[in-house]
Amino acid sequence: MSGQPLAVALVHAPVLDRRGDRVVSAVTNLDLHDIARSARTYGARRFYVVTPAREQVALVERIARHWCQGHGAAYHADRAEALRLIETVSSLEAAVTAWEEELGRPVRPILTGAARPDGISFAACRQLRAEHPLLLIFGTGWGLAPEIFERGWTVLEPVRGVADYNHLSVRAAAAIILDRLHLS
Amino acid sequence: MSGQPLAVALVHAPVLDRRGDRVVSAVTNLDLHDIARSARTYGARRFYVVTPAREQVALVERIARHWCQGHGAAYHADRAEALRLIETVSSLEAAVTAWEEELGRPVRPILTGAARPDGISFAACRQLRAEHPLLLIFGTGWGLAPEIFERGWTVLEPVRGVADYNHLSVRAAAAIILDRLHLS
Repeated sequence: MSGQPLAVALVHAPVLDRRGDRVVSAVTNLDLHDIARSARTYGARRFYVVTPAREQVALVERIARHWCQGHGAAYHADRAEALRLIETVSSLEAAVTAWEEELGRPVRPILTGAARPDGISFAACRQLRAEHPLLLIFGTGWGLAPEIFERGWTVLEPVRGVADYNHLSVRAAAAIILDRLHLS
Repeated sequence: MSGQPLAVALVHAPVLDRRGDRVVSAVTNLDLHDIARSARTYGARRFYVVTPAREQVALVERIARHWCQGHGAAYHADRAEALRLIETVSSLEAAVTAWEEELGRPVRPILTGAARPDGISFAACRQLRAEHPLLLIFGTGWGLAPEIFERGWTVLEPVRGVADYNHLSVRAAAAIILDRLHLS
């Protein structure tokens, strides 16, 4: 059983910076590559890159085009296969809408964050994954802005290792969470 | 139960490039950050960065020093806590020796690689983790050179997702493997 369709969203606004201020974070090339490859590995069908900044959208599309067309694609077929999942959207709402329109039915947004101890367990989330199309949402910078957590969307518990250090990169957290939610 | 002491090694030589030639790969800043943070999250005590290239050693030490001392450390205490695990060594043998000398007893090297289907299972490796100090070894580039696999060291099975796509970044693979070997 591989579950219902899965998509991933990487949010660049609104997110927090280290001071707790709301910012639009810059797109990081390696976030696109790493999360696209992890998403492809675990069978996600879309990777929504969320940013309202038009020059950032252009950057994402230039990177994706480089790897998915012409020389880049021929040089690195497996990279093309991953980066082809990327779709740019200007807001998280637009990501939900695009994913619902593609599937023709409601999807279940799942918020992730290192500072949200009140989330559902990975076991409960695997159950949701079996039953509903999911949109798994990751924040860049210092995490998704608090207002995103006020929409009543499901929140997933943080990844915990030993003790109280929880400062994984978003690339590592996305990889671990996709692995933990994988229905083999 | 948190198992025996654990260390991680990231190998830059000998590794393969995309043509299958042996090369010394360049150190990537984000590899150091991501893998140090994942290592710290899962309680690894050392992160050996393996490169024989002296200017690369200097680069790694400059990065680690920046984050572990002075302004960098004050600005980002959690980053310092992770990057403090880094130790540069010129070869994989030197990493094993350093880790054994630190512990005063033998350690068990564990090789990882996406193209090694003959490895032991994650369940078997968790059992080893409970019983022996481990050195968990990751290759950069297109993976560890074949001669490394001819030493009789234990090999871990690859991370598998859906179907046959296994092109995770080393940062993502290290995160997933540390999570799967974690004894909670």
